[in-house]
Amino acid sequence: MDDAAPVRIRLDLSYDGTDFAGWADQPGLRTIQGTVEAALGTVLRCSPPRLTVAGRTDAGVHARGQVAHVDLPPETWTAVQGRMRGPGEAVVRRMAGVLPDDVVVRRAAVAPAGFDARFGALFRRYAYRLADDPQRVDPLRRHEVVRHGLPLDVAAMERAAALMIGRHDFAAYCRPREGATTIRTLEDLQVLRPVDGPDAGLVVAVVQADAFCHSMVRSLVGALLAVGEGRQPEEWPVDQLAGSERRAVVAHAHGLTLEHVAYPADGGLAARAALTRARRTADQTSARRAAEEARAEARAAGQAVELTPPR
Amino acid sequence: MDDAAPVRIRLDLSYDGTDFAGWADQPGLRTIQGTVEAALGTVLRCSPPRLTVAGRTDAGVHARGQVAHVDLPPETWTAVQGRMRGPGEAVVRRMAGVLPDDVVVRRAAVAPAGFDARFGALFRRYAYRLADDPQRVDPLRRHEVVRHGLPLDVAAMERAAALMIGRHDFAAYCRPREGATTIRTLEDLQVLRPVDGPDAGLVVAVVQADAFCHSMVRSLVGALLAVGEGRQPEEWPVDQLAGSERRAVVAHAHGLTLEHVAYPADGGLAARAALTRARRTADQTSARRAAEEARAEARAAGQAVELTPPR
Repeated sequence: MDDAAPVRIRLDLSYDGTDFAGWADQPGLRTIQGTVEAALGTVLRCSPPRLTVAGRTDAGVHARGQVAHVDLPPETWTAVQGRMRGPGEAVVRRMAGVLPDDVVVRRAAVAPAGFDARFGALFRRYAYRLADDPQRVDPLRRHEVVRHGLPLDVAAMERAAALMIGRHDFAAYCRPREGATTIRTLEDLQVLRPVDGPDAGLVVAVVQADAFCHSMVRSLVGALLAVGEGRQPEEWPVDQLAGSERRAVVAHAHGLTLEHVAYPADGGLAARAALTRARRTADQTSARRAAEEARAEARAAGQAVELTPPR
Repeated sequence: MDDAAPVRIRLDLSYDGTDFAGWADQPGLRTIQGTVEAALGTVLRCSPPRLTVAGRTDAGVHARGQVAHVDLPPETWTAVQGRMRGPGEAVVRRMAGVLPDDVVVRRAAVAPAGFDARFGALFRRYAYRLADDPQRVDPLRRHEVVRHGLPLDVAAMERAAALMIGRHDFAAYCRPREGATTIRTLEDLQVLRPVDGPDAGLVVAVVQADAFCHSMVRSLVGALLAVGEGRQPEEWPVDQLAGSERRAVVAHAHGLTLEHVAYPADGGLAARAALTRARRTADQTSARRAAEEARAEARAAGQAVELTPPR
């Protein structure tokens, strides 16, 4: 990389996760990160740059509103100018020619000052979709809507969901990761059966939080399904928070889609990123955990330092 | 088949046409008709019964609102009773277990008197979907939305479409078939860019007619695309009607979906079927053609007589 300060590019992405082993790069596996980074290298005529992403989706999980950033030497970015109006449009158009058709870069543009796709996010919103009514099954959406063989009591699921909203330790709903906090603020958890629109007649769980731990959304949906089928009372999902072991079955990955990542207005971006880092550390339930996470974050930062400008 | 009058069953179907060689049964090919008939044979424990369909979709074309009928010995239908509420629900549930996941029987029920899925239909409505804006490309819908590399002038397409509505000889838009009329009443042809709903930001052509000849919808869309790209003036698609050779490129099959088939209220069903048969014959432009079509229909009726009650 040359001496000029890198330019940070925001990428907005959508993908069908069916044939990917998740977002995160893994040797020998087809991942969204690996696929998009390789395509960027081709389009930008450089070695594949490293992406930082808002939501590291699991294998089989989809995205319509994924956000990532990448730091590039300014001349690499400006060199993509063509007959198009600017480098952003040129990158979108050329990526469409290089990427397979299950992943799309919808937008590419210079990010506002202080933007960080991962730490700057205000919240992530996921939707989980099920079809429990044979009349509402659409084979064209089978990759993103789970067919459920039993009718679901959406009102009971919605009441159970409302009890879960708030700041809790979600250890019972997380696949454990050494040294990482499991405290999260669940800002919204709704279960509804829309009467019109694209999801009319489906059962849709909408989940919004500042951040999620691993497989948390699918575990929450699994617990709500136990209520929806009448196998557990409405209090059961929230009661599980007191335990430390996972009891809920993790729902199928393919019903889950990352729909939206929200960021503050441009002025508050850097402050938000700093707050996120600080709060995640403060949430650790012990000094040991905090120290481990700090080390993990330092390692992660070290990996990215090659392409990330110091701020 | 036994001596009792057969019972006619209406089936409502949806399918992703991607991996099918169209609706109509063809030896050695995977077709929707062949797949559904074989599954019905399994579920009903009989030899695969013959389906009569509202819209014989081409290879790669999808359906959300396909309708078919099948005539069964009454005891075959009533034998499907299980713990479910009735044979219709039992058939839907068991078909879901037997069919591959790209075709769904959404509903099965005894048809009203006089019902005929093919000849009783008032109109068929198709939608053709394109994404000409990279920001609106959804990889989860890539099987049913055509990505279009050039921005489309939807207003020009809509004006060109309005000129086509009405009763015309659509020979210029049909793949010729010996002895068949190409006169059709195009009841509606709209091109729009919805501002909300499932198709927000896409370009959607909605086509409605009492019947279509072979590849007519895709030819109409191909002509409108020439206008939308600015390659042809708005009058060009309607001017083609005067010619007898096809000039428009046929649009890709995978953007086309049969959305809805409408039938009259129960009382008018038999009358509608008789009218349809009569009008198609009267539309023939020569006595020779009329005679040929009559023979073709007689042959088709002969093939179906095994399962079709005389009415």
